[in-house]
Amino acid sequence: MSSLPSQLTYSHSHARCFRFLSSVSLSLPIFHKFKTSPKLFTKSPNPQILTVRNCGSITAKPSSDIRRKNRTGSEPDEKLRRLRELFVKPGIDIDAYIVPSQDAHQSEFIAECYMRRAYISGFTGSAGTAVITKDKAALWTDGRYFLQAEKQLNSCWILMRAGLALILEQFLFSSDAAEELKQAIAMRNHELVYLHDLNLVDEVWGESRPKPPKKPIRIHDLKYAGLDVASKLSSLRSELVDAGSSAIVISVLDEVAWLLNLRGSDVPHSPVMYAYLIVELDGAKLFIDNSKVTPEVMDHLKKAGIELRPYDCILSEIESLAAQGTHLWLDTSSVNAAIANTYKSACDKYMGSLGNKTKGQSKIYDSSNDQSGGPTGVYGLSPISLAKAVKNHAELEGMRNSHLRDAAALAQFWVWVEDEIHKDVKLTEVEVAEKLLDFRSKQAGFIDTSFDTISASGANGAIIHYKPETESCAIVDAKKLFLLDSGAQYVDGTTDITRTVHFGEPTARQKECFTRVLQGHIALDQAVFPESTPGFVLDAFARSFLWKIGLDYRHGTGHGVGAALNVHEGPQSISFRYGNMTPILRGMIVSNEPGYYEDHAFGIRIENLLYVKEADTPNRFGGVGYLGFEKLTFVPIQSKLIDLSLLSAVEVDWLNHYHSQVWEKVSPLLDGSARQWLWNNTRPLVKQ
Amino acid sequence: MSSLPSQLTYSHSHARCFRFLSSVSLSLPIFHKFKTSPKLFTKSPNPQILTVRNCGSITAKPSSDIRRKNRTGSEPDEKLRRLRELFVKPGIDIDAYIVPSQDAHQSEFIAECYMRRAYISGFTGSAGTAVITKDKAALWTDGRYFLQAEKQLNSCWILMRAGLALILEQFLFSSDAAEELKQAIAMRNHELVYLHDLNLVDEVWGESRPKPPKKPIRIHDLKYAGLDVASKLSSLRSELVDAGSSAIVISVLDEVAWLLNLRGSDVPHSPVMYAYLIVELDGAKLFIDNSKVTPEVMDHLKKAGIELRPYDCILSEIESLAAQGTHLWLDTSSVNAAIANTYKSACDKYMGSLGNKTKGQSKIYDSSNDQSGGPTGVYGLSPISLAKAVKNHAELEGMRNSHLRDAAALAQFWVWVEDEIHKDVKLTEVEVAEKLLDFRSKQAGFIDTSFDTISASGANGAIIHYKPETESCAIVDAKKLFLLDSGAQYVDGTTDITRTVHFGEPTARQKECFTRVLQGHIALDQAVFPESTPGFVLDAFARSFLWKIGLDYRHGTGHGVGAALNVHEGPQSISFRYGNMTPILRGMIVSNEPGYYEDHAFGIRIENLLYVKEADTPNRFGGVGYLGFEKLTFVPIQSKLIDLSLLSAVEVDWLNHYHSQVWEKVSPLLDGSARQWLWNNTRPLVKQ
Repeated sequence: MSSLPSQLTYSHSHARCFRFLSSVSLSLPIFHKFKTSPKLFTKSPNPQILTVRNCGSITAKPSSDIRRKNRTGSEPDEKLRRLRELFVKPGIDIDAYIVPSQDAHQSEFIAECYMRRAYISGFTGSAGTAVITKDKAALWTDGRYFLQAEKQLNSCWILMRAGLALILEQFLFSSDAAEELKQAIAMRNHELVYLHDLNLVDEVWGESRPKPPKKPIRIHDLKYAGLDVASKLSSLRSELVDAGSSAIVISVLDEVAWLLNLRGSDVPHSPVMYAYLIVELDGAKLFIDNSKVTPEVMDHLKKAGIELRPYDCILSEIESLAAQGTHLWLDTSSVNAAIANTYKSACDKYMGSLGNKTKGQSKIYDSSNDQSGGPTGVYGLSPISLAKAVKNHAELEGMRNSHLRDAAALAQFWVWVEDEIHKDVKLTEVEVAEKLLDFRSKQAGFIDTSFDTISASGANGAIIHYKPETESCAIVDAKKLFLLDSGAQYVDGTTDITRTVHFGEPTARQKECFTRVLQGHIALDQAVFPESTPGFVLDAFARSFLWKIGLDYRHGTGHGVGAALNVHEGPQSISFRYGNMTPILRGMIVSNEPGYYEDHAFGIRIENLLYVKEADTPNRFGGVGYLGFEKLTFVPIQSKLIDLSLLSAVEVDWLNHYHSQVWEKVSPLLDGSARQWLWNNTRPLVKQ
Repeated sequence: MSSLPSQLTYSHSHARCFRFLSSVSLSLPIFHKFKTSPKLFTKSPNPQILTVRNCGSITAKPSSDIRRKNRTGSEPDEKLRRLRELFVKPGIDIDAYIVPSQDAHQSEFIAECYMRRAYISGFTGSAGTAVITKDKAALWTDGRYFLQAEKQLNSCWILMRAGLALILEQFLFSSDAAEELKQAIAMRNHELVYLHDLNLVDEVWGESRPKPPKKPIRIHDLKYAGLDVASKLSSLRSELVDAGSSAIVISVLDEVAWLLNLRGSDVPHSPVMYAYLIVELDGAKLFIDNSKVTPEVMDHLKKAGIELRPYDCILSEIESLAAQGTHLWLDTSSVNAAIANTYKSACDKYMGSLGNKTKGQSKIYDSSNDQSGGPTGVYGLSPISLAKAVKNHAELEGMRNSHLRDAAALAQFWVWVEDEIHKDVKLTEVEVAEKLLDFRSKQAGFIDTSFDTISASGANGAIIHYKPETESCAIVDAKKLFLLDSGAQYVDGTTDITRTVHFGEPTARQKECFTRVLQGHIALDQAVFPESTPGFVLDAFARSFLWKIGLDYRHGTGHGVGAALNVHEGPQSISFRYGNMTPILRGMIVSNEPGYYEDHAFGIRIENLLYVKEADTPNRFGGVGYLGFEKLTFVPIQSKLIDLSLLSAVEVDWLNHYHSQVWEKVSPLLDGSARQWLWNNTRPLVKQ
């Protein structure tokens, strides 16, 4: 699955609403990757979180950029009316309210009870921010979702087209930092405030709001995890000590799951559970709904010295940590605003009381110089992020095995779909996706899809994050390209694969584009590079063959993948976004998914997962290691789409070697027509 | 010529010395690329300039890293004694003095009278900073110069090995910003001060100091410049107005030369003259030694509305500009410290007087909000830097033509050197370089070498910036690789070419390395990429073939080249230093010079100059242009060094096509044995 910005760049978020000191209409740009401002946080542990993202250059534009909807027959919006009633209640008194998409953990996939933006606006796309003022309601989203938002928003809502310029002149933000957002707001005589323990959307939602998920969590077996919880905690604690901190709060769900060798079912696609974890040097506390914890899990946690606390007690625990003088490690790129703010306030309180005791001493408080005895935050990337990204032997083995079973399911699927289409059966994109799920679910250890399947025929393939819907999706057309991007969660691993095929005769244009995408895929697959190379250095390898004929694609080339965890994970990426300096390290897993998309015509993407390993080079110039990739994905690439005349001998060899590996590794898992299909589709090609 | 950091990363410099409030021994790291701090400048227009450069990670190390020289028979240093006498003179009173390499214009090549660091220390390498305290004298340089510095420094000097860690514990700098340098110094109870109108080294140097150069300057003909001075000034003034400035000060010598279509002979290798230029909206002033201005040049300047002023009057003019309320554009990455500081002080003075008039008003002074009426600096990259980098048609034509004459000289040279060596004549590296200069100087329009020729046999080739000296250089060995990196200044263009050859039988190892360097060279040469691509994106193309076998090189792949100007120019570069986001633009010229260096054995580099042009792609995805390169350099690449089995068919085609172009373009300029040599060396290769 390709990595659009929204999938990998979750940033520090802030719960807030606006108190307008003067009455103006409001507009907000969508920013991305901004630094934290620990001053702006709410007290609510389930806040309305604002995530701001980058929309490139931002300039004032005339109102023609704002799409005003005026569908006939639409009713005045009851939800908005009730929300606005709350604006003027005693103790609230605000002029506008911001409702972003995320949950309190910055998760990619979230539980229904946290889909507040979807509830209040009716727009169900994965990315978007709603802003409701006393007399207007606006929704920002990006180009992927314009059509969907137009359909789903009623006439009370204004659709703001992110990606175009989105700024009303009264309210121009020029910076991606929350501190600057606050200042920008202040400069226009507005004040950014937060509400304590109150979510206005939840108030409106009332009884109809879905209950938080309560499914039991399970232990992730040591044979898949590779490292027991005690060892992981011990490494973490060493890092805490090295960094001068005495505790860490972990709020990202896959980090909690990875560290505790636990898996959950609270959200679709990701095997995680809603929880916070605080690890101190001599203990740890898991904040979670007790009802999800089975006796077996309880035992597992007890053995690792982990106590249980109610999910909602996270903030009071943070407060008491500060009051005890704890130096808390906070990854402000992932921890939510409520937590960071609570800690900050509690530290200030502590220092205030200390200040009274040490009256007359210097008032300068240098957090890097802990001579005051007061608690200080250690702000840095979560150490678990990198530990989780670098897979151990057992994790890699699980990924390898699950990929072979996944490949077997795909072979069964492909022979089925080819047969149906050649029999002229009319299959919709959704039916095809459901059948694929069928085949996958028969594989051992299958749990879930790892994201919504992109099953896209013809022009739909050019919509990079296309999600077919039963009512509206297309028939899979035998005369068009078909792009299938899908993945699964297994008990031992996570898969993510894209193949593009043609059921009839591809055009020369389609073959040329496909072949150049394949050449880029091969170039990245075969890359060897020195240690410490950031991912973006490799990105151009995957594009260079397209560039030669003036083509390109508008998404990154590779994202990290969790081991039986999230299908998108950081901190590494392979992208034309040059800011991510994270080096590609041994044991990391990345996707290799160049593509090409011709609007209103077709889409092409070829995606394998790779893991990073030492390259066996005859030299080691500079005394450093050289790294390369090994494939995890073993599914044939359709030869019909390859223009052999464009491939070098080395590239043909790559393809033939890959297909011989596919046959060798996957055929033992197949029989009958699927085995025959695999045989037919892994025969070596010969360049004339 | 390869682009080591020192050649392309000139930074804002500061003239200063230290006043030690407590007595400690001093050590300084060598930083690079630091931001300006306009508060720390000297008043002297010919200051002792400190350039600080990066030496990677900096940690405290034991004193074993500091090489103490104790050669027998060395005398107490008379120059140091006299310099230190000045420390305690009334009105000076300092504890340490910093002497960097640069002149006041941040030039790569400088006139002898400005070689203060070489004078005071005896060390003549191109990069180095001397720091003299009351009881110690230390010189920082990088690995290229350790051996040379060891030889040249007497026992009074300590050689500090940059690249290793260089910090004495008392004096640890952790930042590359001058402001932080000042703060770091302040935190250790030292104070950074500057001396007015006084250079201590010049005082010591006295009568023996060479006179500043006085050679006449000449007009750079319009047929080579392509654009007259009036047009260039007019474009510049539009940019000034757009940026909200009313004047600009230009101190970089090649910018002055380019803008005024003038050329000089004040420094070796670069056809420039010492001067400052101030361009206002309605006039311009050139600050230069009058005696260099011929009547013809005077006339040329008058026509363009440019007045002359004495070179030393630059600071008083800056002061009076500020006093007139001029918004001055200052490129703090190139303008010297004296100028920036003088302007800043004069602005403060102006605002101070304004402050008295508007007593009681807000004291906050926002330079971006010019409602005060006071002068404000416009800080940004010089607009001339980019205008100069993007060549016009006439400049490109001059570059093409001069490269062909240069190629003819090289063909004559190569046939001569091959003959001599096959006759078993013992030629030194210096003799070979001198003979090459002979051949070049016979070409029409020849002026000078464009840098010191690197003529390196065997192991000397692994010393990236090797400069052979008559007394110590090697014999060119017929049994070893020979690397020749050289260039020339012609009236119409500037050349820079490296070829590596073997006069006997290369080893398989040498052939493999050479072939992979060549593959990288071809990959970059053939790259096509979208507009707005920064140079560093292309760097990995040139390395990928070496990386596959665990090899690499420690310099950038490409630098900008001036048209009949400096052989190294910015702002673009193609390098693994990922900070330079300057896009590669149509009309820019870059070198393509991958290499490989095996310490104590051999060096390989293959360098052509390329210009950037629109690529003729059949598509233009994203509505942007796609760019590619066209070669300027046409000199054979030695086929003997190529392992054909490693080359793809496309790469063999590239080589054969290149050689056919070499024959076609250069053979008309040759006859006799040189023509025969060119024929022999441009025959197509056939891969078996």
